[in-house]
Parts: sequence; structure tokens; C-alpha cells
Amino acid sequence: MRWFKSTLAYDGTAYHGWQSQDGQPTIQQAFETGIFKVTNEKVRATASGRTDAGVHAAGQVVGFCVATDLSAATFRRALQANTPHDIYVLKLEEVRAGFHAIRDARFKRYRYLIQDANHHEVLARHCVWQVPCHLNIGAMQQGALILRGTHDFRCFEASGSPRKSTVRTISRLTVEWIDRDEFPRIVLQITADGFLYNMVRNIVGSLVEVGREAVAVSWLHEVLESRDRKKAGPTAPPHGLTLMEVDYEPGVLLDPTNHVPS
Amino acid sequence: MRWFKSTLAYDGTAYHGWQSQDGQPTIQQAFETGIFKVTNEKVRATASGRTDAGVHAAGQVVGFCVATDLSAATFRRALQANTPHDIYVLKLEEVRAGFHAIRDARFKRYRYLIQDANHHEVLARHCVWQVPCHLNIGAMQQGALILRGTHDFRCFEASGSPRKSTVRTISRLTVEWIDRDEFPRIVLQITADGFLYNMVRNIVGSLVEVGREAVAVSWLHEVLESRDRKKAGPTAPPHGLTLMEVDYEPGVLLDPTNHVPS
Repeated sequence: MRWFKSTLAYDGTAYHGWQSQDGQPTIQQAFETGIFKVTNEKVRATASGRTDAGVHAAGQVVGFCVATDLSAATFRRALQANTPHDIYVLKLEEVRAGFHAIRDARFKRYRYLIQDANHHEVLARHCVWQVPCHLNIGAMQQGALILRGTHDFRCFEASGSPRKSTVRTISRLTVEWIDRDEFPRIVLQITADGFLYNMVRNIVGSLVEVGREAVAVSWLHEVLESRDRKKAGPTAPPHGLTLMEVDYEPGVLLDPTNHVPS
Repeated sequence: MRWFKSTLAYDGTAYHGWQSQDGQPTIQQAFETGIFKVTNEKVRATASGRTDAGVHAAGQVVGFCVATDLSAATFRRALQANTPHDIYVLKLEEVRAGFHAIRDARFKRYRYLIQDANHHEVLARHCVWQVPCHLNIGAMQQGALILRGTHDFRCFEASGSPRKSTVRTISRLTVEWIDRDEFPRIVLQITADGFLYNMVRNIVGSLVEVGREAVAVSWLHEVLESRDRKKAGPTAPPHGLTLMEVDYEPGVLLDPTNHVPS
């Protein structure tokens, strides 16, 4: 039995999220079906986190173990050939036994794309949240500074998903106005050691409340201190969100020379 | 009867191109249906050019005339509400009687997106041509210089589409490596006073032959001089192509103050 770490990109539009559900197409089901077609073995793949329905990935990490004689490079190409066109197997690396995509993750990075009332990019409508008003980027950037750092983020946790601790550290939270290719957009990037359920989408929804000037920037202090989900802004829609990167220590790789990008 | 000029963005993925065909979904049919729903009149809309199946637009211009009392701004919003989510009515302006979207166009600009073997952006797969090899951008840029200017472009005209003259002037042809959002891509922009059928896609296909170093840059001189479609490179696939802009003289507008961007 060999252990593998695979890095996936996918368009979540057509899927009911990562996790297998009876009768619904999911990324997990499509990926595990690909492994079965290549190895004839039914295995369970574990993702670094369950992306919700409509959420995308440019660097989701998935772990699984399977008996195969294929080299990692050949296995990657075979898997790619046996997954749908909206899932791409960016990397496949052999890892030490016991690798766990959730527990071993050191940090994760998400991106959220927004266009405001002055712009509408039809070709990107499946991955950009179209907000029907003007947004004050400067206010959103000030709000991001308030949220950055180590806090109890219970106010941004979806209800019905209690964790032992709701303290997390956001090491990076940026709001940028990217004006390229004639399609200006707001790019929000967030990196943390871990995320509560719906935390990114709840943070984005709250920063948009600040951006549309429905509330003052300082309102975010009150929200954080309240530890109450009802005080925060609405949950931003899933389709603007992309899981960009999950970081592990290099020591998880069985053979660092196996590290072939494609 | 009033005359209108509408600027449309659309994702061509789900359509069999602009032009109405029996039993196939087309942009024209969807747009004319929208006009009918708003005005209860069956009108014919004329586009600046027929985009092929799978080709996109960020600034297609369409002309039509219809009896309506709606202001241009209200009409635009009503049309938007009555067209599918993959078509967006960017502008609607009233124009002088006799406006003709094809004949009155002064120049058009197209964009073509390419990713090479080192990159794969799943979220953009419907609008980027994925070329499975490395491309030499410098060679493509040199090739672009050869094609720019006034030439007989018959070598890039699809067969079965004779025009009186096959001489056109390409005022701009650029090949750029855009490294944004962690998704590097090659952006090809081409502006001309007119295009022969499939001319952009045939030029892109030929520049990619140069980029993958299957031929020398100077081969493009031979292709141009041959005036023979068989000498040129293959036709690039439609989904990488977007019609960005069609230019008209400002005098076509009935009332320049009508010019409301959204």
C-alpha cells in the first residue's frame, strides 16, 4: 500500500461540493471513481477541507492510499485522463505512511472575487460575486486590518458546527482592486492556520457591508467581540470562493525528487 | 419606429454562435426573444459580425429598430431582465435612422487567450485555448510584426467565403505574457478595419505554429505571399476568442447624452 498526496484544481459549478452524498455529483465521488478506473481499487480520498457546493479550487489537497505499481507521474496522467474536464490533477506525490490532508495542513489560503455595480464580466460570472452597488475599497482594507491576527472568530462560524476552539490566526487578509484585461475586480485573499465552517464567506459578507457603507469600519470590532453569528454580515455566495493553496511541511513527501509539477 | 444600438457581452459556450438557426440556441434568437418579451414586437437584430459557435463577446454591437415608448435606460434594464444569464446588455443607445451595425463599423478588436503546457486554469477552460507545449512568446511577437499593417490576408480566409477584396489593415496585433492572479496566460489582441471569415483564428493558429517552433518566424512571409489557405497554420479553436470592441463614429448616436454605460 502506498500513500499519495494529490493537488487538484476544479470548477465547483457542477458539483454539490467535495463530500460524497447519495445521488448528487461531488468532487470526491468523481476523483475516487478516477482512482478506481486506474487501479481497480475502491479507496477513500480525504480532502484538506470540504469545499461547499459551488466553491472552486486551484490547489485543493487530497490524501489517499492505494496499491499500485505506477510511478507518481504516470499515475497522475492516468488519473487526469479518468476525471471529468472540470477537475484537473495538478500534482500527485508519494507521501509517508499516515499522511492526513486535514491534520497535517499548516495553513490554507482562499481567494474571493467580487465585481461591483460598474462592471460585469459575463465570462467569469461562475467565479465572481456580482455586488449591485459601489464598494469603498479603502474601507474594506481598513476592515481587513481589524480582522487580521489571532482572534476568537466564533461570530463568523456557521451555526450548527461547534468546534472545541474558535480561535484562529489570520496571517494575511488583503483586499485589492485589480484592473487588468479591461475587467476590473476586487480580489480578497485570506490565509489562516485553519478556518471555521463558512468563516471565509462570512468574513467576505461582513467586509462587503463595510464596503457598501451600510456600517462603519469600527462595527467589525463589535462583531468580533460579540462572538455572535447574528451580529455579523450575511454569508457571501459560494461561487466567488476558490481554495488556492494548502501548505504542508516538506517532510511529508516520501521522496522530494518525486515533486513533479505536471 | 426608433433605432437602437446595443452593446452585448456573452459567454458563447452554450450557443451555436450569433446567427439564428432552426432548432439551435443562438445569441440572436435569445436577444430577439428578449426584445419581443419587452415590446411585443418581432424584430430582426443585426450584429457587427456573426460570432461562431463557442466564440464569446465582451462588446458585440447589435442594431435594431422597434416601436417603443421606453427610455433607453429603462429599455436596457427590461432587456437585461429578459435575456439569459450568459448574455449581458452592457449598453443600449438610440441611434439615427439607418444605423447599420456591420456597414457603419470602423474597426473591431478581438482578444484570444492561450495557456501553454505549464499552466492549466480550470475556471477559465471555456475561454482559454490550452496548448499542450511550451510557446516561445518572443517568436510570436516577431511574427505579429510581420502580419501587422495592410496586406492581402486571403491565406487566412476560411474556404467557401469569397469576398470582393481580401485586403485588410491590422492596426494592432500584440502578443503578451500576462502573469496575474497566479494564472499566467498569453493574451493576443488584434484590431483591424475588418476581418475575413475565420481570419483571427487562422492567424492565432499560425502564430502558435511559430510559438511552438514548428516553423521559423519568416515562414509567415511565405504564407502571406502565397495567398493560399493551405499554406497557413491550423484554425485555432473558437472558445479562446472574444470580440472585445466594435468602434463607430460618435455621430451615429441620436443624442450623445443618451450614452449611459449601464
